[in-house]
Amino acid sequence: MSGSTFGNIFKITTWGESHGPGVGVVVDGCPAGLRLDEADVQAFLDRRKPGASRYATQRKESDSVEILSGLFEGRTTGTPISMLVRNTSQRSSDYSDIASYYRPGHADYTFDQKYGFRDYRGGGRSSGRETIGRVAAGAIASRLLAELGITVTAYTQAIGGIEIPDAERPLEKLDIEESRSNPTGMPDRATSLKAEAYLKLCMENLDSAGGIVACRISNMPAGIGEPVFDKLDADLARAVLSIGAVKAFEIGDGVKASSANGSANNDSFRMRDNKVTKATNHAGGILGGISDGSEIVLRAHFKPTPSIFQKQDTVNKNGEDITVQIKGRHDPVIVPRAVVVVESMTAITILDLLLQNMTSQVDRIKEFYSDN
Amino acid sequence: MSGSTFGNIFKITTWGESHGPGVGVVVDGCPAGLRLDEADVQAFLDRRKPGASRYATQRKESDSVEILSGLFEGRTTGTPISMLVRNTSQRSSDYSDIASYYRPGHADYTFDQKYGFRDYRGGGRSSGRETIGRVAAGAIASRLLAELGITVTAYTQAIGGIEIPDAERPLEKLDIEESRSNPTGMPDRATSLKAEAYLKLCMENLDSAGGIVACRISNMPAGIGEPVFDKLDADLARAVLSIGAVKAFEIGDGVKASSANGSANNDSFRMRDNKVTKATNHAGGILGGISDGSEIVLRAHFKPTPSIFQKQDTVNKNGEDITVQIKGRHDPVIVPRAVVVVESMTAITILDLLLQNMTSQVDRIKEFYSDN
Amino acid sequence: MSGSTFGNIFKITTWGESHGPGVGVVVDGCPAGLRLDEADVQAFLDRRKPGASRYATQRKESDSVEILSGLFEGRTTGTPISMLVRNTSQRSSDYSDIASYYRPGHADYTFDQKYGFRDYRGGGRSSGRETIGRVAAGAIASRLLAELGITVTAYTQAIGGIEIPDAERPLEKLDIEESRSNPTGMPDRATSLKAEAYLKLCMENLDSAGGIVACRISNMPAGIGEPVFDKLDADLARAVLSIGAVKAFEIGDGVKASSANGSANNDSFRMRDNKVTKATNHAGGILGGISDGSEIVLRAHFKPTPSIFQKQDTVNKNGEDITVQIKGRHDPVIVPRAVVVVESMTAITILDLLLQNMTSQVDRIKEFYSDN
Amino acid sequence: MSGSTFGNIFKITTWGESHGPGVGVVVDGCPAGLRLDEADVQAFLDRRKPGASRYATQRKESDSVEILSGLFEGRTTGTPISMLVRNTSQRSSDYSDIASYYRPGHADYTFDQKYGFRDYRGGGRSSGRETIGRVAAGAIASRLLAELGITVTAYTQAIGGIEIPDAERPLEKLDIEESRSNPTGMPDRATSLKAEAYLKLCMENLDSAGGIVACRISNMPAGIGEPVFDKLDADLARAVLSIGAVKAFEIGDGVKASSANGSANNDSFRMRDNKVTKATNHAGGILGGISDGSEIVLRAHFKPTPSIFQKQDTVNKNGEDITVQIKGRHDPVIVPRAVVVVESMTAITILDLLLQNMTSQVDRIKEFYSDN
Repeated sequence: MSGSTFGNIFKITTWGESHGPGVGVVVDGCPAGLRLDEADVQAFLDRRKPGASRYATQRKESDSVEILSGLFEGRTTGTPISMLVRNTSQRSSDYSDIASYYRPGHADYTFDQKYGFRDYRGGGRSSGRETIGRVAAGAIASRLLAELGITVTAYTQAIGGIEIPDAERPLEKLDIEESRSNPTGMPDRATSLKAEAYLKLCMENLDSAGGIVACRISNMPAGIGEPVFDKLDADLARAVLSIGAVKAFEIGDGVKASSANGSANNDSFRMRDNKVTKATNHAGGILGGISDGSEIVLRAHFKPTPSIFQKQDTVNKNGEDITVQIKGRHDPVIVPRAVVVVESMTAITILDLLLQNMTSQVDRIKEFYSDN
Repeated sequence: MSGSTFGNIFKITTWGESHGPGVGVVVDGCPAGLRLDEADVQAFLDRRKPGASRYATQRKESDSVEILSGLFEGRTTGTPISMLVRNTSQRSSDYSDIASYYRPGHADYTFDQKYGFRDYRGGGRSSGRETIGRVAAGAIASRLLAELGITVTAYTQAIGGIEIPDAERPLEKLDIEESRSNPTGMPDRATSLKAEAYLKLCMENLDSAGGIVACRISNMPAGIGEPVFDKLDADLARAVLSIGAVKAFEIGDGVKASSANGSANNDSFRMRDNKVTKATNHAGGILGGISDGSEIVLRAHFKPTPSIFQKQDTVNKNGEDITVQIKGRHDPVIVPRAVVVVESMTAITILDLLLQNMTSQVDRIKEFYSDN
Repeated sequence: MSGSTFGNIFKITTWGESHGPGVGVVVDGCPAGLRLDEADVQAFLDRRKPGASRYATQRKESDSVEILSGLFEGRTTGTPISMLVRNTSQRSSDYSDIASYYRPGHADYTFDQKYGFRDYRGGGRSSGRETIGRVAAGAIASRLLAELGITVTAYTQAIGGIEIPDAERPLEKLDIEESRSNPTGMPDRATSLKAEAYLKLCMENLDSAGGIVACRISNMPAGIGEPVFDKLDADLARAVLSIGAVKAFEIGDGVKASSANGSANNDSFRMRDNKVTKATNHAGGILGGISDGSEIVLRAHFKPTPSIFQKQDTVNKNGEDITVQIKGRHDPVIVPRAVVVVESMTAITILDLLLQNMTSQVDRIKEFYSDN
Repeated sequence: MSGSTFGNIFKITTWGESHGPGVGVVVDGCPAGLRLDEADVQAFLDRRKPGASRYATQRKESDSVEILSGLFEGRTTGTPISMLVRNTSQRSSDYSDIASYYRPGHADYTFDQKYGFRDYRGGGRSSGRETIGRVAAGAIASRLLAELGITVTAYTQAIGGIEIPDAERPLEKLDIEESRSNPTGMPDRATSLKAEAYLKLCMENLDSAGGIVACRISNMPAGIGEPVFDKLDADLARAVLSIGAVKAFEIGDGVKASSANGSANNDSFRMRDNKVTKATNHAGGILGGISDGSEIVLRAHFKPTPSIFQKQDTVNKNGEDITVQIKGRHDPVIVPRAVVVVESMTAITILDLLLQNMTSQVDRIKEFYSDN
């Protein structure tokens, strides 16, 4: 079936494999009149580009985006925006040996089981390159959210268990600028250096690490999210888990909430500046699947990169137990490059729900069409 | 917008509020020829019925299901199955005071923000009674999965931090029968008694507790899940987070995976009985969003019941800070009753993806239609 | 698969068979705050009720609707509206003989082929009673459209080739009140009498007739319809063809357009009262799949009722050629009762597209959320 | 909203405008293992290419397709197939004058009303070039249908009222080969010559013509179509009406059915070669929205090309009545080039419903997974 489309109103369809001609996305349902050019999208793509640091694969892709439709005189026209990034560095030979066996922790076996065969030249559709389409679409969603005054900010919270201190501090207390320039994506230089030392060790051990990406949504209006299956947190969970290697999703206090008491977990409402606010934010900005107007806070837990250079047990396509040693170029950690992917999927999800919410009340629909 | 429909092929639409005439569900896309009667569905509903234990609300609902369509001579006909459960115990007066203020931890405020007003007689659509429709549909999905040899088993793993020992032991080492009869839903009597003592303490403190529901899928075929946005784990995450009060979702090792190394987290493939198997199952049965043929393991983290009887700060609809004390009947923990809801949403999700998977390969489609 | 759901934002799911406990619909995505009660819906249902005239089946169903959810204090709450109509007149015995063979012109054979068996007590899901859910939903859509100043009016244009004169005259020149009270649904008394005489003849001949239902949408705003697959006319065509027995759909000049010249078919634009208008309306109010602000005009062509009392050739389930004579109660023409079904499906379709259109322009979205 | 996606399982998303960098489509949900290369798709595209005859615009586009993903070693992989056709002949200057006014019969006014502005360099998204994506996808659908033994054949039935004689004769009595090589697309040389003479006259009169495209589906299995809203004929109607310029859709006897009697319109069932068949086919191969195993016959009525070279009344963007004379290159009839578009949309629709039908019966699902 068709699983490459995401969203109801702001709808994206990604396509492409790691070793085909290219990857891309069609963004349908983007409202007309948004100022946009390729540089806006390129800026997002550059944040996930390989080769940016020593902890990322040295594959050199320029990852230059071409916008093929949906723009006219610098604005979106309301019609589908098709974006293409050519694959320019296809060293298939690196991968030729993996055709014959199933790499542990990878989707080789499951793709073969599902489709009867697979493009064995690399990760194919399960490659990290698939996320290029998501990020290109996320750049557009973020541009539109910015017009509404909403910002989405993701960063690395932890790598291999090394976590930034006081992880729940307010966003303005985090050094987001630092996170955009260091190789870990952590908004805290001291922790980043520790994490880098840890990653160096991982590489020496021919091993890899996982980590946590946190994401905050600021200035979110209340009322967004559609009961009962398109709850804001439910749709965010799907969006985030659809990113390869994510094994857990938390909103607000997340797993900690399951061992707390109601008296501690409930957030009191209080008036502040004539507005209903919450004294605390254990809920992470969502009540009953609908945004409550406070900051939305989510976390994605990534497993360690499955491609490690140690010897590993596996089976080959002849059904024999074998031992393999993977070659090629692989990040010892994918978390830093995944930050912008989490940010993009979050932006796409909340934009879609913001648009869906516009039809919630008859009076506001009447007002809308009375202007017309 | 319309957020009350879930699934692509096996599609459910739930409806109903806690204090209206009833609640229910329409199940569309259920294949024809499945043996089914009301008793199959009732057995599932009885597992979530209130009043089953002292830790559940004493509201007495018979929760009797009526199947209104889609059955003929004891079998499904392939047409929509509409199911209705009347609300018979609507003590609205208990709730009348909550019309004027926003209960902390509840969706009162967010529903008002979204829709301009709400049915203030209770939880309305955000009430736990909404899950009746899910469970009725889950009963049907489970029946069909049973025909394919697949079983879904959920149980309480922890309450208020009190967790069953060796939680990752094989399913057959858990006492599932015990879990179906004790008031906590835990498959381990000793831990259940500890949790009961803890809940008693919570009630004395006018407080509440959360917990963890685990769910295992046995005998799942490999190849199920639709890259890239309808990955099996992504759809399960949405399904589970769409249940009220869930704050985190884990698949396989979940949050632990983010601090592990690749060498520890990777599951080796090994031949066993002439089949490809995994030596371990850190992945929780899913690789690249597609089932790998091993057991699928997920966990849902529930926050503590927000309705507590302690005094709480909040605001009223006039925008004044007030202090309130909630009355009525409320479970000190919702986890035991949520077990069957998690099981149902899981069953619905995997059945839908099993059906979606049938069109993955041209050769199997040709075979299907050559029989015709 | 699940084919019982229609619409993207205003989404309806119908269920029920002719000889089961009842039929109904769940309307999801209806905006909150719409004044509505059961009488609004009942009024629509009464327009399709059997037994209203001698040309309709004498089956006496009260067809009383019960609204089970989604209303509070006389207004919609934004949550799903579930509506139920019990079947009270199930004379299955009339139908028992049809279990063994396939009625010509009916869906008996195709349902058996699709599902392996069928509910043979009557039309089952292909019965005209399925449309009750559509009409109940259509009543709500029409109420909401009325709030926006939009009206949808359907009527019978022809029966058995007997057509009202000057069928394209302006709506105000048609006697819609007449059409709501006479047995043909025609807005022209003289033609209605002729058609009645014709139907009487059909009944004497143990035969049946078809006809044309026309539908006009007044005061439609320009800009509605979603290129390229959810064009307004494309969605209307699906809506109308999904009604049993419809064999053709026309918009504007329809089939006549295919033999016209461009110079005759093009509608000139002209300013009138400071507004852009069209001098003629061959297009039927839609250009490029988007409403142009003029009246929308469509026509549905219904085949004659397949249940006739003449002897007919067919085959039985043993694969033998046989001759049969159908018994029971059957309308000699379904067109008069189908009028409100066409009107309902049209109302549902345009309401859904009106809601979809609200996200077309960034500036209007910004305006919407700046009010928030 | 997003209206550029069509289909549920075999899902296509088209994109692109006439004067942007290119047009294309993403085909998602195509089963794995289908032999396919660019030549298969190119052959379809060549059938709609401009410049093929004197009755088509002289715009010279090579319309060469590039397949960007979803293929490996000559077979589909089950992942999205992205296809791109560059626009190479963008003579925007021809169109610059139309920026200031609304062309009669075109979507200029409605796009402006919907989106607030439009790409005024040509038809933009409402250009016939948008259908390139549909045809590329249709080529793939047709390839897969061929594997199942199903063929879809469209041809021109009439132009400007000049119709092939005995239009309902069996497909094998039509000269389909002729229709693929002559400039009208008519499967009857004598009529084609008459139509050509008529078109010549139209051009001399600076006028244009419409016509009828018929489409036949051979060897269709019974049981395809999803009651009640995704009836086979309903989905075909939407598919066909979504093509620009189509004003009416007929299935089987179509409009004629509305004036027929039941005794004439009903198709008797008869056993033939041990199979249930119909003695006649007034129904056009569909009963109750489900295929009955006979040939499916549909017709699309196209309005005349709106771009004519006569003087026409219209209004400009300043709201003034003006008279204009359109320049540029425009087909006097679009029907011949639309044949392959109708064929493509038909193929896509029936393939999608064939795939949807695979989950209709529990027994067949069990059989499917028991093989696994």
